[in-house]
Amino acid sequence: MAGGGELKLLGVWSSPYAIRVRVVLNLKSLPYEYVEEDLADKSALLLASNPVNKTVPVLLHGGRPVNESQVIVQYLDEAWPDRPPVLPSDPYERAVARFWAAYVDDKVGPAWLGIVFRSKTEEERAAAVAQAVAALETLEEAFKECSRGKPFFGGDGIGFVDVVLGCYLGWFTAINKLIGRRLIDPARTPALAAWEERFRASEAAKGVVPDDADKMLEFRLILLGVSASKAK
Amino acid sequence: MAGGGELKLLGVWSSPYAIRVRVVLNLKSLPYEYVEEDLADKSALLLASNPVNKTVPVLLHGGRPVNESQVIVQYLDEAWPDRPPVLPSDPYERAVARFWAAYVDDKVGPAWLGIVFRSKTEEERAAAVAQAVAALETLEEAFKECSRGKPFFGGDGIGFVDVVLGCYLGWFTAINKLIGRRLIDPARTPALAAWEERFRASEAAKGVVPDDADKMLEFRLILLGVSASKAK
Repeated sequence: MAGGGELKLLGVWSSPYAIRVRVVLNLKSLPYEYVEEDLADKSALLLASNPVNKTVPVLLHGGRPVNESQVIVQYLDEAWPDRPPVLPSDPYERAVARFWAAYVDDKVGPAWLGIVFRSKTEEERAAAVAQAVAALETLEEAFKECSRGKPFFGGDGIGFVDVVLGCYLGWFTAINKLIGRRLIDPARTPALAAWEERFRASEAAKGVVPDDADKMLEFRLILLGVSASKAK
Repeated sequence: MAGGGELKLLGVWSSPYAIRVRVVLNLKSLPYEYVEEDLADKSALLLASNPVNKTVPVLLHGGRPVNESQVIVQYLDEAWPDRPPVLPSDPYERAVARFWAAYVDDKVGPAWLGIVFRSKTEEERAAAVAQAVAALETLEEAFKECSRGKPFFGGDGIGFVDVVLGCYLGWFTAINKLIGRRLIDPARTPALAAWEERFRASEAAKGVVPDDADKMLEFRLILLGVSASKAK
């Protein structure tokens, strides 16, 4: 079964979690059908495939759904072991990669939501930015530990932590414009700033990680409108 | 390297996250040294081994630290593939198990903290209980899907979702006493209630999953004291 069947991805172009799956599909050169979802009017297929969380991304493999982006990424890696690996093969290195991937989603994810969607005042936004910067400073050290002088967390190639962190870079583009400086500050986190450039320029990320701040900020207002109308 | 070296676990007897690692060490019949940590005075080894989160459990394998309980469980499974498996071998079934394990920690974990530590009023506690019950009702359906008529989420034997959910049962004992009824209600979630009995009675859980409600509730007051003194 693994490796066979067609792949279909239900996503939203700006979603970090959908983006990370697309980057991995690119890394592994796996052809797939991409279906753009409308968060204000989710498809019947999305609701039927992910009834518990009702979120994107959903990967359908031969019609069977896989949900939750970190789960999907590991599924793709395990179902196609003959394609370029995302997780290291050594169990200890896999554990280190999983630890940092969890750290990114625990710390960077909420800070992103705080900066872009949830902060109601300048003070709240500044606090969320400070949270993001503190996490990125920790990740600067993690990068040195994981990369061992090589270009990516995964070493010579893009790995699990690269994918999990790199998928936020689209929103970082918008945040940079919102706050008037680079969130990944080359002065405070030089290794991560250089990594950011490399990740954005990679073949797997091109065309998938957004780089148009204005388009992101416009979409942000639409998403905030969706939230406001849902809250009514 | 994998499979060699001594195992040491830094834990706290009541911690669900330390308990799940101990259950897996039992399942895989791996001998280990257990070190009980004092949350009010964490050891230098704990702080040095998990400098980012400073939490238990920490597994040291030949001196190298592995942190975060779900990461540790997967590490043990991958480093000792010749011992009874915790995750299924099929990539799709692994993805399903990882999805439900993430669901448990996303939904049951916060509800547990809400009921036991964070609720300041009866209303807040009732809301946290309702959250837990809703999650358990979803898990009742997940159990039917995953177990396919067998005793555990993992089928004939204890698997990843069993371990991740089962580790909360010690605190459920205390919660049952606090609220005056079983949190896993045999009327609302009969399959899960029967699973609870089986999990508690398993060799891997015996002596590791606490069953003394009074001892748990006494420890709860100590932990609340720790939090209060830290907040000063």
